[in-house]
Amino acid sequence: MSTENNHRREFIKGLGVLSVGVASGCIDAKDVEEPKAGYTARPKNAQYMGDFAAAPLDKVRCAFIGVGDRGSGHVARIHQIDGVEVVAISDLYEDLAKKAKESCNKNGATKPEDIALYYGGENLWKKMLQEVTPDAVFVSTPWSLHAEMAIASMEAGAHAFVEVPIATTLEDMWKIVDASERTQKHCMMMENVNYGREELLYLNMCRQGAIGELLHGEAAYIHDLRFQMEDIERGTGSWRTHHYAKRNGNLYPTHGLGPIAQYMNLARAEDNFARLVSFSSPAMGRKMYAEKYYDTDHKWNQLDFKGGDINTAIIKTTLGRTILVQWDETSPRPYNRLNLIQGTKGILAGFPTRIAIPEKVKKVGNHHAEWFNEEEMGRIYEKYEHPLYKRLGALAKKRGGHGGTDFMMSYRIIECLRKGTPLDQNVYEGCFWSAVGPLTEASVSQDGMPQDFPDFTRGDWKNTNPLDIIL
Amino acid sequence: MSTENNHRREFIKGLGVLSVGVASGCIDAKDVEEPKAGYTARPKNAQYMGDFAAAPLDKVRCAFIGVGDRGSGHVARIHQIDGVEVVAISDLYEDLAKKAKESCNKNGATKPEDIALYYGGENLWKKMLQEVTPDAVFVSTPWSLHAEMAIASMEAGAHAFVEVPIATTLEDMWKIVDASERTQKHCMMMENVNYGREELLYLNMCRQGAIGELLHGEAAYIHDLRFQMEDIERGTGSWRTHHYAKRNGNLYPTHGLGPIAQYMNLARAEDNFARLVSFSSPAMGRKMYAEKYYDTDHKWNQLDFKGGDINTAIIKTTLGRTILVQWDETSPRPYNRLNLIQGTKGILAGFPTRIAIPEKVKKVGNHHAEWFNEEEMGRIYEKYEHPLYKRLGALAKKRGGHGGTDFMMSYRIIECLRKGTPLDQNVYEGCFWSAVGPLTEASVSQDGMPQDFPDFTRGDWKNTNPLDIIL
Repeated sequence: MSTENNHRREFIKGLGVLSVGVASGCIDAKDVEEPKAGYTARPKNAQYMGDFAAAPLDKVRCAFIGVGDRGSGHVARIHQIDGVEVVAISDLYEDLAKKAKESCNKNGATKPEDIALYYGGENLWKKMLQEVTPDAVFVSTPWSLHAEMAIASMEAGAHAFVEVPIATTLEDMWKIVDASERTQKHCMMMENVNYGREELLYLNMCRQGAIGELLHGEAAYIHDLRFQMEDIERGTGSWRTHHYAKRNGNLYPTHGLGPIAQYMNLARAEDNFARLVSFSSPAMGRKMYAEKYYDTDHKWNQLDFKGGDINTAIIKTTLGRTILVQWDETSPRPYNRLNLIQGTKGILAGFPTRIAIPEKVKKVGNHHAEWFNEEEMGRIYEKYEHPLYKRLGALAKKRGGHGGTDFMMSYRIIECLRKGTPLDQNVYEGCFWSAVGPLTEASVSQDGMPQDFPDFTRGDWKNTNPLDIIL
Repeated sequence: MSTENNHRREFIKGLGVLSVGVASGCIDAKDVEEPKAGYTARPKNAQYMGDFAAAPLDKVRCAFIGVGDRGSGHVARIHQIDGVEVVAISDLYEDLAKKAKESCNKNGATKPEDIALYYGGENLWKKMLQEVTPDAVFVSTPWSLHAEMAIASMEAGAHAFVEVPIATTLEDMWKIVDASERTQKHCMMMENVNYGREELLYLNMCRQGAIGELLHGEAAYIHDLRFQMEDIERGTGSWRTHHYAKRNGNLYPTHGLGPIAQYMNLARAEDNFARLVSFSSPAMGRKMYAEKYYDTDHKWNQLDFKGGDINTAIIKTTLGRTILVQWDETSPRPYNRLNLIQGTKGILAGFPTRIAIPEKVKKVGNHHAEWFNEEEMGRIYEKYEHPLYKRLGALAKKRGGHGGTDFMMSYRIIECLRKGTPLDQNVYEGCFWSAVGPLTEASVSQDGMPQDFPDFTRGDWKNTNPLDIIL
């Protein structure tokens, strides 16, 4: 408790945003209302995991479930980090398992011959968990398998690290929360975008009160991924294409939303997710694409694509802030995550990185805020560059993975486990961010009816520390 | 009927969008459902005004109600157009009425001494309507007065031209529709943005099917207007500031929405407005601004600002398309109207003007659509520059008013009245676009509940011609 209180004091001290809010009387504790969705009492012997810190590990014995397009990259990056031992790799396919094993032959502490391989059967990953009892398990499998594998990993005594989204149904998210609280193991969804240079800069600026009170955010995942439909046998398209056909909502919300949620301190003391509304556009692009590139009798031309090409949602927070969340993996359009945050003193936006914080608002005369020029942007980076980026940015660029974000995330995971500190993303954040999937599906199916977020923290978000700005 | 059928055939022929839609089977007539809001039967002797064309006028005798910041500009521009006679000007204030009169001393057909002035009393505009019986009345007064003045103008035998928004309540919009249908007089909301070069270019491209099927649009009015609060006595801020205090929703939706609605042919044969959902951000900026720049006992510091700084809404159309609509006149942020339209073949966006239409979508390999470079944009303008802009662009630039849009709008109003053709914006469009105001207020007050659009056309939108692309 005392350490929590210390954290809390530092948070209030560091948090220009909230103090300004209280000062101005615009946002005040009394205005905060609970998310409306109910929840059952936390089971006995279960523990709230919001600020959970596990016992420090000198060496982190890592195992991997799924080493395809995404998981193989995790193996290659993580095994190079000090204090890591890759103990086991499991995959459906022998060649993928062996390729991942061979990627561990340089710079790492692990010798390939010491890595246990599990491939072939659908359930061998369970055998792996029992036989090697790893400290940490990294799950990079199709979305529908995340929950079962994360929960089994925690039950087997390991901390679980799961690709995005953490799950696709609210039921599975509750199961993950309950398993983490019951086993007192971490379950972190690996949202790498929160480690981007721009995202860390904006997080720092929001914490320092650089744009005043936070009013509104915009998050998106706009990325034309139709080409993945060519992964017909075992690649991403082989299973994800069926999601586009069956589900109508925002299927992939976390890359855009994760950073905005941490700018606003959602589910961490300051504010939380309350409800959302959503509509989808017509479903056209995937059908047209299948008709254009595949034979009439091809399996992609047998599907009835029900998922609208573009999903748009608006989230309302308990403090009354709004967040626009968009998703489009089908339309011909330049890549974009929006990454926009509007405050009472200025605006931070992405794609490209743009900042406008008018020095002084004139009392008289029409005047528009202007985006900062190169020189002004230089001053911003000088003043607000995030400490984590200063510490790891250069190394991350070298090690790579989505511009270094993957490496920084992997590095922080191992660092936190070895130091025994809380992780940068707790299990509740992974669930809140992913919950936009099923909640938009529900709103769309009910022609726009508002959907309340379940409070995965059972009310404890108010006492949870914000992400430590120093990291 | 036969002319309507001819129009309809031309429309179908010209409209790559719709025909592609039917061909692909993605959007089909059978998918179209009525907007859900009910309406009473059209009164006897009333006539649907969707494609209404009045008898040609050789000379258009124009009168003006309200010649402040906005109305004075209308007088100065309109009196220079051939075939116009400015017959009367009314305003609360003598100096404004006289100044507007004096602006008619060059290039125009009207001699100042022939212009009847009405100033002083609140109801002298009614006297003006009775005494001068103008052909056209231009209303540029506070929002809450628009409906009464437009209706009285039509009752007095004049066509009414009203500033944006056409009205602030659904009740007033119905009264305007019924008055127009009863009197068979035009009532056009003067949405000048639809005459912007970029907006006309995009309209032309959408009609030609350049971006395929239209899926999603984005419209906004993001313009920091806090400085208007200094207009304390009789300027815009003197009355608009009270709207910010009392109303919570999108108070000014039409500048962004008008163009998107015409790209999609909403309320014109192809598609229509169905429903919307909306949330507002906290209300902070106006209170902070008043506290910073005005004494504690100043009237702006006595107001309780209830209107959220930023309103975000999502509109669903009868074809299932989506439109994001945003409004922010308070936050420090660069000006923006978004003006984005996404189709199945490409995207058109504003602020700055950006277009991406990938030549060929590769079957294999991750690839992003790229925004066109200067050369590609040049080819777009060469191929798709709107005929109206080619015809009037140069003159409009010279005559000015929001980059020429005001002049082009005024010119087209007079041209249509003299030729006896339908106007570019019918009374129903003015009401649908403005209805986003009260509908967002209702959704916000009900914590995001969807609100159905009333069908101001009483089902006749399906037989209404789209805006003629040639103009």
